[in-house]
Amino acid sequence: MLGQLARDLVLQVDAVPDAGGSSPVRQRRELLGGKGANHALGLRQLGNAVELIAVAGDDPAGASALHEAVEQGIGVACAARRGTTALLVDVVDSGGARRLLEHVPGDALLTADDVHRASAAITAADTVCLQLQQPAEALLAAAEIATRAQARIVLDGAIEGDARDELLTRAQVVRADAAEAALLTGREIGDLDAARRAAAELLRRGPELVAIGVPGAGDLIAWHGDDAFLRFADSRVVDVTGGGDAFLAGLVTGVRRGWSPERSGRLAAAAASATVQLLGGRPELGRLRPDGAQ
Amino acid sequence: MLGQLARDLVLQVDAVPDAGGSSPVRQRRELLGGKGANHALGLRQLGNAVELIAVAGDDPAGASALHEAVEQGIGVACAARRGTTALLVDVVDSGGARRLLEHVPGDALLTADDVHRASAAITAADTVCLQLQQPAEALLAAAEIATRAQARIVLDGAIEGDARDELLTRAQVVRADAAEAALLTGREIGDLDAARRAAAELLRRGPELVAIGVPGAGDLIAWHGDDAFLRFADSRVVDVTGGGDAFLAGLVTGVRRGWSPERSGRLAAAAASATVQLLGGRPELGRLRPDGAQ
Repeated sequence: MLGQLARDLVLQVDAVPDAGGSSPVRQRRELLGGKGANHALGLRQLGNAVELIAVAGDDPAGASALHEAVEQGIGVACAARRGTTALLVDVVDSGGARRLLEHVPGDALLTADDVHRASAAITAADTVCLQLQQPAEALLAAAEIATRAQARIVLDGAIEGDARDELLTRAQVVRADAAEAALLTGREIGDLDAARRAAAELLRRGPELVAIGVPGAGDLIAWHGDDAFLRFADSRVVDVTGGGDAFLAGLVTGVRRGWSPERSGRLAAAAASATVQLLGGRPELGRLRPDGAQ
Repeated sequence: MLGQLARDLVLQVDAVPDAGGSSPVRQRRELLGGKGANHALGLRQLGNAVELIAVAGDDPAGASALHEAVEQGIGVACAARRGTTALLVDVVDSGGARRLLEHVPGDALLTADDVHRASAAITAADTVCLQLQQPAEALLAAAEIATRAQARIVLDGAIEGDARDELLTRAQVVRADAAEAALLTGREIGDLDAARRAAAELLRRGPELVAIGVPGAGDLIAWHGDDAFLRFADSRVVDVTGGGDAFLAGLVTGVRRGWSPERSGRLAAAAASATVQLLGGRPELGRLRPDGAQ
């Protein structure tokens, strides 16, 4: 798993104050976060062995984040240490709406050198997940190593420019929310039909399985010849953060197990639904662990 | 100095995102904060010896906050350690407006027991500053010890109920912003005349020197027989946080040195002005240090 590692600070308030005002924080959680780490946690909780390729700060927050990852069973031997750990402040109001304040220092992003130092781990993996909020040079380096090792490449999110086309050509699985799918395809994703058209285009460009979020409705998964729509579960949403990350973890787990796209998609949707019922983006998927069970 | 100790997390953003949105953080500072600690820092920077009576969490943030206080020359032998350190997230937009998200766990508040354990330090002080955002029982216990020891009592902020009257009777100096002065006197403070009337009422109830903020204009200081109005300096405001705390530190420094109210007020206003030009509430008053100089 290649992607961001951060400190997640989740603050639940009744309402965000106006300028000059203040609000008491009803609940506060502070833990390992960032999309890369959340993917890794979700994958691990669903029974996968995971190595995390990410940058942790050379600070107490970085040490504590890596310690937490290790306690969760995630390999961090490939994680770089430098600078200040990225901080994501997730302010969630009582209606479940969230506002994200993202502090990602420049040296918290992965470089091609970081990736090359992790090449043994990439080569050893059957599946390499690339979270696309990282610099193109790092993503391309990882994709090249993974292709050479005949590993499955999974993309999450979006990236623009030349790297996009090369990564799509190399990838087998792509997940994107509606805004990310719009960046990948140049098409607005307003409804299920638009998501189907975007998925068809992405499938033409390389991947075998595509998942696209449909705003307010659910997730489309599409593969050559067919698709399936997974409507959002009817459960109470506490915080949408991390829903898409958990979806990815479920989807990849199913694919790695050789499950059908539909069955993988159902696990993905269940993982997303479980995560949005929690405050913060961190998944708790242990109960969904698909050990032999459906 | 008795008051709150917290971790201050200051996040500078271009604008606060709407629900569902995100904003990059342009600058982040994370340091010792809370009104009690900021008063202590300001007083120390202006040359006063300071003991801080406060609660630090029994967590890494608490250890780091106390370490920072000690490095700044503040005595922390009387600080209690328990629970989780209070966290104040100060979100400042590019216009200098701030929104405060305050997480103050119940056990981060001082108790009468905490104060009794600090009685030797209170007895040894010539001046005892009480920041009024603490439980009445703790404030009353401190005021009683200070009165017995004939120490000068300084109140900052506001409190309601019976404790208010007893504290005002015992105090020599009171500082309140407009909203706090309204709580103390039951009068709205919309302009300078209203502040004068509130100050006169407070002077009748015990204190010898009263400072009241006038919204958008400046600070009134009043004493028996006269007053002076200190207009806000014409400097660029980066973050209003901590301005009033620095004002208090300047005022107390002048009073302790036996300066006239006007001269004390000028130092207070200069301290406030220097602080609102910085991101975050933490003062940097070393350059204002009034060692013999004016």
